[in-house]
Amino acid sequence: EDLKKQQTVVSSDPYSSDPKRHPILRVNSLKPFNAEPPPEILSDNYITPSAIFFKRNHLPVPQVDPASYQLHVEGLPGGVLTLSLEELKTRFPKHTITATLQCAGNRRSEMNEVKQVKGLNWGIAAISNATWGGAKLRDVLLAAGYGPDVAKWARHVQFEGLDKDVTGTTYGASIPLNKAVSEEGDVLLAYEMNSEDLPADHGYPVRVVVPGTVGARNVKWLGKISVSAEESSSHWQQNDYKGFSPGTDWDTVDFKSAPAIQELPIQSAITTPADGAMIDRSAEELTVKGYAWSGGGREVVRVDVSLDGGKTWQVAQLTSNGKGQEPEPSPLPGRAWAWKLWEVSAPLPPDDQELEIVCKAVDNSYNMQPDTVPPIWNLRGVLSNAWHRVKVKIREDECKE
Amino acid sequence: EDLKKQQTVVSSDPYSSDPKRHPILRVNSLKPFNAEPPPEILSDNYITPSAIFFKRNHLPVPQVDPASYQLHVEGLPGGVLTLSLEELKTRFPKHTITATLQCAGNRRSEMNEVKQVKGLNWGIAAISNATWGGAKLRDVLLAAGYGPDVAKWARHVQFEGLDKDVTGTTYGASIPLNKAVSEEGDVLLAYEMNSEDLPADHGYPVRVVVPGTVGARNVKWLGKISVSAEESSSHWQQNDYKGFSPGTDWDTVDFKSAPAIQELPIQSAITTPADGAMIDRSAEELTVKGYAWSGGGREVVRVDVSLDGGKTWQVAQLTSNGKGQEPEPSPLPGRAWAWKLWEVSAPLPPDDQELEIVCKAVDNSYNMQPDTVPPIWNLRGVLSNAWHRVKVKIREDECKE
Ligand SMILES: [Mo]
Ligand SMILES: [Mo]
Repeated sequence: EDLKKQQTVVSSDPYSSDPKRHPILRVNSLKPFNAEPPPEILSDNYITPSAIFFKRNHLPVPQVDPASYQLHVEGLPGGVLTLSLEELKTRFPKHTITATLQCAGNRRSEMNEVKQVKGLNWGIAAISNATWGGAKLRDVLLAAGYGPDVAKWARHVQFEGLDKDVTGTTYGASIPLNKAVSEEGDVLLAYEMNSEDLPADHGYPVRVVVPGTVGARNVKWLGKISVSAEESSSHWQQNDYKGFSPGTDWDTVDFKSAPAIQELPIQSAITTPADGAMIDRSAEELTVKGYAWSGGGREVVRVDVSLDGGKTWQVAQLTSNGKGQEPEPSPLPGRAWAWKLWEVSAPLPPDDQELEIVCKAVDNSYNMQPDTVPPIWNLRGVLSNAWHRVKVKIREDECKE
Repeated sequence: EDLKKQQTVVSSDPYSSDPKRHPILRVNSLKPFNAEPPPEILSDNYITPSAIFFKRNHLPVPQVDPASYQLHVEGLPGGVLTLSLEELKTRFPKHTITATLQCAGNRRSEMNEVKQVKGLNWGIAAISNATWGGAKLRDVLLAAGYGPDVAKWARHVQFEGLDKDVTGTTYGASIPLNKAVSEEGDVLLAYEMNSEDLPADHGYPVRVVVPGTVGARNVKWLGKISVSAEESSSHWQQNDYKGFSPGTDWDTVDFKSAPAIQELPIQSAITTPADGAMIDRSAEELTVKGYAWSGGGREVVRVDVSLDGGKTWQVAQLTSNGKGQEPEPSPLPGRAWAWKLWEVSAPLPPDDQELEIVCKAVDNSYNMQPDTVPPIWNLRGVLSNAWHRVKVKIREDECKE
């Protein structure tokens, strides 16, 4: 009877039908569910297994019946185009791309250490890499009537999710039209993740994948696409996911003054060793591993690693993969959507008891990461891409026979 | 007689036919001629007058007869297309774009202060903004036979100048094919600069303007265009104009390991006050001015200015122009080719005798400038885009009646 009662209570919770998650995930918020994998595991795989791919939900996970699912495409001359899941899969060629998604709030915890910000306290693993399969948004828009006449007035493509808050407001976002319709933009209406149906947490049955662009525009559980002269009017497009000067606070912020985050800047982080790790002096060599990625299809061309807090630097080896997987083919120019994993092995400095390991990456526009957090601090704690710093202690051998 | 002798000697000098230059320019090298305007003047004009636009010549200025000038377009199915200046002007629509060009070595002097590098000792004014008029490279390539079949194997477009060294080697460079043929790439074969014929120093009669891309690829005195599977094999493409880790020196450098610089990273600098300037306490308010620009068509969205060495920041006002010129229309997304001028006025801090003024810019991919020079130092002194710092002294009023 108690159990029955509990189930009734639970079922009035909008999160009660959320899927099960892998227990290894580090949970930042249960309702809505937001979680990241342990960093050491992240760099074990070039393709992040879906179960440990970071989860970033704004709202309860909607339960969508694939048989009755409909995708509405609006704002084009022919009126509304409505596609079933089957039509999306059969009327348009399937394209596959490997793309890294990163939350705007990845590494927010480092900003919190400078001064409190508003948002989930993400570590360094709100970023993951997957292979996505689906129809090209470009193909669907062309089928729905997109053409040169539309290009004259349209500037944005808006997306609406099927996830809703208690008032019925759905998640929404938009991207610039040129990204959506360009052949090189590679925007997908994805129905597969790592060769399987999308998991519930990643937008089953259909999500947008906007490679090179902040996670927040990669709308999940996609219900509606609208071609428009205006950006999405959603909270997340207008009053969130924007960057500000470190001097701007909640009393002075004018959200209209900053552009919505789209392409993300150059990023990298050290996944191993962990901050605070203890290294045995007998190890002699230290291996440092991490990831590096840049937005806008800009390819990471170099990662510099320092063992002395940034005084001297060595160049890390870029590896497409963690454990002897096949190397990835070189991306087309401007279409480097996937991260690079990297590692460097170096002798332990003989005289130090503590090391500050630092990494910084460079992309093919030669953009670099800023040195320190305070000058890029912002009230929402987004775009946290300063050099990543990890302190480790060296344990001297106790017995030297 | 002495004069006659001198003239004979002079005329054996390959630089003897170089044009006259404006005396206000600060000369970094006479032969070849390399010079930049005084920074304070640079920010007076949104469009830099051609006479003070920075000059960056690798070789003597060639004298080109416009009547016999020929442009050769090679590597396409129809064989070589040869165009006279007249044909270039009449067979193709004229397009006009405002684009900023920046030398890879702009602000090299700040790297020299860290550790000696090889290269001309540029200050902060190896950057200028002009309006360019000419044919679209895309249109010329299409007329010469470019099409989907070529796209299958071609990857680069090479340019050769008519400027030669003593061995007859011409200046050369290349850009990625997708930049050259894209409608949004806006690459011009320019024959006009600021509504007049190109000046001799800027490539008369025809130069390439590759907006968003490092100056070195904007080949002047253009003689030949080749569509190719390979990059230019020139010294300047292969063994120069590349970025390296600060730990890489001339003994260890492998030029093949780094990509040729194309798009440049986010940049800004303070044009006034000058470093070392003396400010009167009676002024009460300090006005700081400068420029900001980013490569790849990324628009500058914010400039932060600090009067206390980077501890606190205020947001500068972005002005398209220096002195009440009409504001520029908003650029198309991904096609922000021109710089922004900016200024900020702030009360003089009451207690300080010396101020360290700092600026840093942000582009619409939210890329930021690195904080300091040493971690981006590289042996060629290119890509110098750390925060710009200027120290000024405040002179207390001597007579306070
Ligand atoms: Mo996010
Ligand atoms: Mo240059």
